[in-house]
Amino acid sequence: MDSAPTFDPKDFRQALGMFATGVTIVTARAADGSPVGITANSFNSVSMHPPMVLWSLARNARSLPVFEAAEQWNVHILANHQEPLSNRFARAGEDKFGGLALDLGLGDAPLIPGCSARFQCRTAFRYDGGDHVIFVGEVLAYDRSDSAPLLYVTGGYALAARKAGAVSTDAAATLGDAPYSEDLLGYLLGRAHFQFMAGFRRTLNERRLSDADFFVLSLLSVRDGLSAAEVAGHIAYTGIDIGSVALRSLADRGLLDDAALAEGRHVLSQAGSDAILHVLAAAKSVEAGLADRMGESELVALRNLLKRTILASDPGLPKLWTGGAGPA
Amino acid sequence: MDSAPTFDPKDFRQALGMFATGVTIVTARAADGSPVGITANSFNSVSMHPPMVLWSLARNARSLPVFEAAEQWNVHILANHQEPLSNRFARAGEDKFGGLALDLGLGDAPLIPGCSARFQCRTAFRYDGGDHVIFVGEVLAYDRSDSAPLLYVTGGYALAARKAGAVSTDAAATLGDAPYSEDLLGYLLGRAHFQFMAGFRRTLNERRLSDADFFVLSLLSVRDGLSAAEVAGHIAYTGIDIGSVALRSLADRGLLDDAALAEGRHVLSQAGSDAILHVLAAAKSVEAGLADRMGESELVALRNLLKRTILASDPGLPKLWTGGAGPA
Repeated sequence: MDSAPTFDPKDFRQALGMFATGVTIVTARAADGSPVGITANSFNSVSMHPPMVLWSLARNARSLPVFEAAEQWNVHILANHQEPLSNRFARAGEDKFGGLALDLGLGDAPLIPGCSARFQCRTAFRYDGGDHVIFVGEVLAYDRSDSAPLLYVTGGYALAARKAGAVSTDAAATLGDAPYSEDLLGYLLGRAHFQFMAGFRRTLNERRLSDADFFVLSLLSVRDGLSAAEVAGHIAYTGIDIGSVALRSLADRGLLDDAALAEGRHVLSQAGSDAILHVLAAAKSVEAGLADRMGESELVALRNLLKRTILASDPGLPKLWTGGAGPA
Repeated sequence: MDSAPTFDPKDFRQALGMFATGVTIVTARAADGSPVGITANSFNSVSMHPPMVLWSLARNARSLPVFEAAEQWNVHILANHQEPLSNRFARAGEDKFGGLALDLGLGDAPLIPGCSARFQCRTAFRYDGGDHVIFVGEVLAYDRSDSAPLLYVTGGYALAARKAGAVSTDAAATLGDAPYSEDLLGYLLGRAHFQFMAGFRRTLNERRLSDADFFVLSLLSVRDGLSAAEVAGHIAYTGIDIGSVALRSLADRGLLDDAALAEGRHVLSQAGSDAILHVLAAAKSVEAGLADRMGESELVALRNLLKRTILASDPGLPKLWTGGAGPA
């Protein structure tokens, strides 16, 4: 063998990072009874008969002697919501198990609850892997949940979303540089938004509420007592110019509190509050139907990406839920 | 050691499938010169010094003797668009390399173009892994691209999306069962849609185009010659009731072809065509700005999830891009 090639470590890591992985915590019990655990994404399945999995640990890891001495260890595939746990077990010297109510396993290795899947293993082989040791374990027991797993890819945490087919059945719709194709993000956002609203439009119509009315009532359901200018400032990004006439129309239908309105503040009346709760319940029911058809983990990923889009395209909107920051 | 536990293979695979992975193709050259390759998701990084990676291959794989005899093999981390290649190399007996223009590597192992990353390796170790053989390779050379990687999770192909922070800075906005929270999908879809449109609203305003005008012109840019009822049918899901008055207004501004209109068909005039191309260029520029700020691979994942949402919430719209299927 020639001498080992020397790569720029950061660049080499970036290339390796193109391979997406889940995130695991591997745990064992030290001889003195103390629990040990580390975050690892070097896990993978190996064998079906016998059932075996592997992971690798750096030779300079402080926990290496514990894992070398332990007969059993547990691999926890972390769920989407366990990112804080991943961070905690990736750092040295923390009280990693503080506050964790451990489950009972076959052996004495710590078994962390709330994961996407767990594998209780007995060391089958330990192999040389350069500056790491490869642990191959026979799986003695396992369990899993429906929690969407946490991912690690290109150096950061991520969520997975199943690949979709085309919206259109016409391949030409996504080909080439057509000015208007079904891959145009603006089209997809608009169609998804309007189809979602179409799911509860009957409820809007029953209550004689326009889209603009709905936006204003939603706003007032979280931000009470706004002036007309403040309402307009919150709604302006929709392209709808909310003037006093539109607000007057809501008041005429008894949806705004008259006493507050006399002071120039917009507050929902009981009827307004009832109306928006009724419409929001219908919207939630549309969302629940989508969760049934797409899977809740897909909706988690969609919400996540929409938030990123909103942050990346924020024209400097007044904060809706944050306390003080009204329109300047 | 006790005898190996026996798990239900399907259930055990489902538990293992909670660990997300990338997808690789591993290639080598047989002694007779023929190229060999298989799809594998058992890849992982092992060592930095020396640089090493591993993957495992079933003992009963037809290509095992080739990989055991080969000095070098290449691991290709597949990009999002290489799903067909993954399927092709996962099946036995196909002409797997047919039509592939291979790149030149250090050795004679086939090097497939268009991947997210590639690692050219020399076998360092071969280890027993139950019904699989674990190949550990020293990385002699590697390269990578910016193509978003293909994922495999819970038994299907997927895309990764980076996790986002909260849109609001107020934790209370996402807590509990508030009827209107920033986790309500309808809110996120609407805000993302309207913020996107706000990015080119100035262009719409300059051309004196309402949202409804924009939807009609976009529609006519891909579907020529629709009747008024057909236009209304395509737009109805937006909640906008396109009547003859709105279409007349477009005609009055010279955006529709008069001769076609006399026959009851709606076709863009040259001015109408210019106007929609101008607006769509502005929309594409908003999309390009988002790609800069979020990364193109995030937009790939977002488009993917929006398509799934659109399919899952489709109220039975007439197909926009597909040829024959006009409104019934």
